[in-house]
Parts: sequence; C-alpha cells; structure tokens
Amino acid sequence: MLPVSRFAGLPKDAEQADHSVTHPRGFRAAGVHAGIKKKYRDLALLSSEVPCSSAAVFTTNAAAAAPVLLTRETAACDRLRAVIVNSGNANACTGKRGLGDAARMRSVTANALRLPPEEVAVCSTGVIGVPLPIDAIVGGVTRVARKASRALGAEFTTTIMTTDRFAKQGALTLALPEGEVRLGFAAKGGGMISPKMATMLCFATTDAAVPGPALQGLLTRVVDRTFNRVTVDGQQSTNDTAIMLANGASGVSLSGKSLRLFEDAFEQAMLLLALALVADGEGATKVVRLRVEGAFDQPEAEAVARAVANSPLVQAAFFGGDPNWGRIVQAVGQIVPPADGAGLKADVAFDGLPLVQRGVAVALSYDERRHLQKIMQTREIDVLVSLSRGPATTTIYFSDLTYEYVTVNSEYN
Amino acid sequence: MLPVSRFAGLPKDAEQADHSVTHPRGFRAAGVHAGIKKKYRDLALLSSEVPCSSAAVFTTNAAAAAPVLLTRETAACDRLRAVIVNSGNANACTGKRGLGDAARMRSVTANALRLPPEEVAVCSTGVIGVPLPIDAIVGGVTRVARKASRALGAEFTTTIMTTDRFAKQGALTLALPEGEVRLGFAAKGGGMISPKMATMLCFATTDAAVPGPALQGLLTRVVDRTFNRVTVDGQQSTNDTAIMLANGASGVSLSGKSLRLFEDAFEQAMLLLALALVADGEGATKVVRLRVEGAFDQPEAEAVARAVANSPLVQAAFFGGDPNWGRIVQAVGQIVPPADGAGLKADVAFDGLPLVQRGVAVALSYDERRHLQKIMQTREIDVLVSLSRGPATTTIYFSDLTYEYVTVNSEYN
Repeated sequence: MLPVSRFAGLPKDAEQADHSVTHPRGFRAAGVHAGIKKKYRDLALLSSEVPCSSAAVFTTNAAAAAPVLLTRETAACDRLRAVIVNSGNANACTGKRGLGDAARMRSVTANALRLPPEEVAVCSTGVIGVPLPIDAIVGGVTRVARKASRALGAEFTTTIMTTDRFAKQGALTLALPEGEVRLGFAAKGGGMISPKMATMLCFATTDAAVPGPALQGLLTRVVDRTFNRVTVDGQQSTNDTAIMLANGASGVSLSGKSLRLFEDAFEQAMLLLALALVADGEGATKVVRLRVEGAFDQPEAEAVARAVANSPLVQAAFFGGDPNWGRIVQAVGQIVPPADGAGLKADVAFDGLPLVQRGVAVALSYDERRHLQKIMQTREIDVLVSLSRGPATTTIYFSDLTYEYVTVNSEYN
Repeated sequence: MLPVSRFAGLPKDAEQADHSVTHPRGFRAAGVHAGIKKKYRDLALLSSEVPCSSAAVFTTNAAAAAPVLLTRETAACDRLRAVIVNSGNANACTGKRGLGDAARMRSVTANALRLPPEEVAVCSTGVIGVPLPIDAIVGGVTRVARKASRALGAEFTTTIMTTDRFAKQGALTLALPEGEVRLGFAAKGGGMISPKMATMLCFATTDAAVPGPALQGLLTRVVDRTFNRVTVDGQQSTNDTAIMLANGASGVSLSGKSLRLFEDAFEQAMLLLALALVADGEGATKVVRLRVEGAFDQPEAEAVARAVANSPLVQAAFFGGDPNWGRIVQAVGQIVPPADGAGLKADVAFDGLPLVQRGVAVALSYDERRHLQKIMQTREIDVLVSLSRGPATTTIYFSDLTYEYVTVNSEYN
C-alpha cells in the first residue's frame, strides 16, 4: 500500500494493489544478500520481459557518484529495460576504480539478462568513499537474476533500503477509457543519511505504452512537483536517481486525455512517496506543508520557501510543538529585500488560523490559542506565508529537527 | 579578558585590561533590572562624557526590529554618544507600537543624559513579537543613568546577555607612536537563539580620536572580516547591531600608519569575540575554521563555504568526532557546476593532513589515522577545501550541531 497523507489524494479511478514494481504486467524483481551489508539483502534487480520506453532523472550534485555518471552518460535512458541496485555502498568519491566497478556491475547484469549493457541502469546507495566489494556483487547478480519473479516486487523495495524506518512502495490499477493500466512504485531514503550516504532512489513501472519523449517529460514534471519539493536537511545527495520503465504489456497506449489522467495518478502516488521520505527523514516526527504566496517572482518564492523549510530554528520549533512564527518571519526576512524604514509586511497562518498580519502578531482568543495547541500536536501541519509582493507561489514539504537527527548523524561510529 | 582562540592573535603592543567598554577614558556604563526579565539585569547604558565620532553596522534582515529601524533611519550614526540596550525583548515584529516604544526609550535616555535624541542609539535583544514593557523601561532609564560609572563596563556586558553561557568582553591598551589609546569591547549572542531571539550585539569604545568617515570604513571592514565570517545555524537575526564610539579623550588622533595598527588590533579583538560567539553557539562543543581555496570566483568561494558550514550533516559529524569528508564533498558538490562525465576533483585536509585528493580518499597509515582521531578531539579544528577551479579564497568559522541545540531551540516553553 502507498503511504497516507492529507496533503495528497489518489484519483477515484485508481485502485491500490500489492507487489509494488512488479504489479504492472511483464516485470520481474528480487533482492539477495551479496555481502555488502552484514546480514540484510543488499542487491536488487528489476527488469522487464519485453522492451520498454523509459525516462530517468539524476542528482545535479557535481560530486555525483560513479553509477550516476555511468548511467547518465552512457546508458540509453529512453529505452532502459533493467535496473541493478545495491544498498550499503554509494560508490561515490571512488574515482576511476568506482567507474570501472559500476561498468562491471552493469555488464554482468546485462549478460545475465541477455540485454545490451546500455539498456541496464546502475544505482548505488550507502556509505561514501569506500570501494565496492565488486566480486561479491558479481556473484550476487547471477543469483538475483535467477530469483527474479513477478511476486517479489516488495522484496526489491526492502533490499534498496538503508536507514529507512519503513518501506516506501505501492501499486495502482488505473481504469482509463482505453482500458486498464497498472503502475508500481519503490522508493528509499530521504535526506542525506550519511555515513550510509543513503540517498533518494525511486523506481516506477507501468505496463502502459508511453513513447520515450512523453515519458521523460512526464517524469521530469512529476519529480519537479513531488520529490524536488521536499527537504529534510537541505542536503542534496550524490546518488539521487528516479527511473521509470513503461513496457506496454497491457496493450494500452496512452496519449491525450488518458495520458493526463495517468499523469495525475502518477503524480499523487509520487507525492505520497515523497511525503513518506519526509516523514521518515532522520528522526522526523512531523511533516509541514509550507505554501508561499505573493512572492515577487518564482525565484523569490523558491528562495523564501527553502529558507524557511531548511531553518534549523523553524524545524526545532515544530519538534517542540511551538507555533514560533517569529522564526518564520526572520527566515523570510533573510531573503526579501528590506522595505524603506518599515518592517516586513508578511502574513503567516497555521492550518488557516492567522497568527501574523502585515508583520504584526494577531491577538488570539482563548479558544484560538487552544485550537493552535491542537494544530501543533498533529503529525501534518499546513503553513501559509503571504508576502503581498507579487504573483508567485510555491509549495514545499519539510520535517522537524529532533534529537534523533543528531543521533543518527553523529553517533553512527 | 578577551576570549582565547588559536585562530586569532593580538598584536604584541596591545595590553589587555579590565572594565571592557569603560576602559577607554571618558566612558561610563551600568546595568539595572528594569523588569523585562524576571530577576536578572535587563537594561544597560553606555555613554561618553564628551562628544564622539561613531560608526554603526546593522542587520540586513528585511524583518529588522523597531530599534534597528529607528536608529538606522533617524539617528546621527556618525556622532552617536550613547547607547541604551535592553535584553529579554527584541521589540521585533511589533509594528507601529514597537517604533513608538523605541522612540520613547530613546527620548527618555536623551533627556536623562541631556543629549539630543539623535545622538542616542537604541538596541534590543530577546523574545520576538511581544510589545516592550515600556513603562518599566522608562523607570529603569533614570536609575541606570544615575548609576553609570567608569567602573561598571563589565556590568554593561552581563546586562545585555540572554542565553549566552559566558560574557564576551575585553579591553586593550595600545601603545602607538603618537601615544597610548584604549579600546573596549562588549558583545553578546551568536546564532538566532530564539524564542529569546537573542541576537548579535557588539559595542566598541575607544578614547582615540578617529574622524567619523574613517571610523565607519574601519568598522565596516572589520565586521566584514570577523562577525560576518561566523555562522552557528545560518540564521540571520532581526536585531544584529555593531556600534563603535570614539571620543578622543586620550588626546591622540589617529591617521596613516597608526590607524592601520589600531585597525589590526581592533580586528584581532573583534575576531576573538566573533569566535567566542561561535564557541557559545547553542550547544556548541567545537569551532571549525573552514578555508576554501581555488574557487572559480568570490561568490563561488562564499557559497561553497556557507554550504559546508551550514550543513547540519557536516556539523553533526564534527559533534560526533567523525572526520566525515564525504559530507563536505557532497556539500561542495551542491554549489559547483558538474564537470562533464567526471566526479568532483576537490582536495580536503584537516589540520594539514590530506584526506581527499582530486575527489578520491587518501589511504591513511596507522599513525595518520591515530593523528586524525586526535585532531577530531580538539576544540578548534582547521579544515581546508581546495577546488583548483580558480583564484578565489575565503574563510568562515562555524560550530557543531549538538543535542543541546535541539534542546535550546525546542524545549524552551
């Protein structure tokens, strides 16, 4: 089942199903223990029985890991048919040796599946700066290729986890005018959960037929509206990758209105996964949706949203259950230019309750103060910042800053 | 005494002295309990017996507090003669009432000292969004003006503290070719220590005679090289203010070489205070000096330095005593543009020990690993990041991220 959030909702004609990435017809997957982690499964394979159109989005971090460099630069990202993923080691900052290891991981997978290497994507997630145990991985590839089946989509998802507290996956059957199509999803990670250097990976499958260029446009748009709108600690990883495979095994080709319905369902499912990453952000106890309205232009809206969402002061206040709007106004004030001789005229509301109007605190009644206390105890909080400076708006989702974040990120040795 | 750090050193001809801001001749100061805080002193006055030249630097936050707006827009910042400061309340986000309260605080102080109001600066630090208890402050002004003396410089410093764990102050006597001059310093705060919204305030005095424009240039340059180079949590406050008063009471006028010697001593003292703010950052246990070399240009050097210094992952690793260079490379990779098909070619060294060369981990010997462990246990750590992309360099100082930071910023209710 997909995660649940009040900030996203599936279309009525979408029905949830099991087996995540292998719910769509013609996909097989599995996970094995190759020996990177001490005891958990650490090598996962997803492949389609028939050719696919595909799309991929990668991290823009200049310190991108070897598997990202290899796949981005040398794979046929519009017709990928398989993905080999290891957890426990990011193969990042590993130089030429890392690139060679990623290429070997790809070639043995291609051999096992009898595919050209350029149709196989390679992903890694885990500790940075340590060479891959490539011989163990090569041995694992044969086993995982033999094991892969239509029943093991959920195993694929749990195999790619690192410090995740729960699996992020789901599957949908979508009734479209042209017929039924199926979608499957597996994601992992959240922020940078180093030293595991755990990272955001997301794999989506469908048995709809969608031409490569349309699929790439769809994936880029949806990632932009979902995964690119969440932040745990503002730290972009070296390994982030989202890959979508469409194998057409349903016999249903999508275009026009059907493609738009498909994109809607896909977007809501991806938003649920992205919100689950935030909820599973290191030590997170709350998810905040921040909407910024009335910014001067889009870059200002984006900068204001990021400044508030990534402020450790704002995040810690949400952990403490304190509606500390002063920290929000202060973060906004770092971004927008000062008005001559006057303070910042921002409005702030929590779940529709106005706390600040034109930069000044609203006097709350006793009942409103009680209501605000209840809002602060909920797991998902909606914050609206209005600037009255122009037409630009944006939305971002972030988590709170907790003791657990410091534990996860300082006591791992 | 000024704080101590291996990252700054006073000139040989500078001798430390007591009484901080009242060490220079002709200054008086004191603190009283006006009733903003429950029991500690909360209203401080500093004034010169004779006219001064002066200089001031203010926060650039658009949500600047009322005392900042009032002083910046309506005071004679080149001939200030007195400063009235309250702690416990920032008078920020308080609208027109806040501006009226700041103006009243200034006028009663000017009356008590028989000065024109425009020669009095007003500063506030503390909780945001709550109106000042202005009647209590007005009563306190009379008492603090009566109490002010040459012996109470240290009391001024402790009165402006909020969540500071120790007072940041000091005084110097400087033997210059033209004769002896004295300097005094009082600072408070660090990051945004809200809900106290504690902020960076710094007051410096001297009995040297320095013309207003030269003094403003000097203060701006020195603040740029000291207070503007530190970060605790990347959160710029609504109340930051630095004010310098030069009353010429020593009879020594500074220009040319003497003024440069004076600026050197002033800069080192201000750097020691700025480093003390970092060391007293909420819950901080370590101070890191980060030098960035070989950036493409100055904005890139600055962005790289801020990305590393404000990364909660990097900060938490230093708290945990882990030389996690992967998080540093990852933060750098967020800023610099990707190189075609290749990883990031950065070098990283801790206290001169190379850990990464051209983006790849250096294999450390047993002795080097032991040495690195020792480096990580010290209170002040030096980190060098070299990018080989161009000629630009910069330096920034930051603190680690600890449990105490989360406590201070979430459990204050």
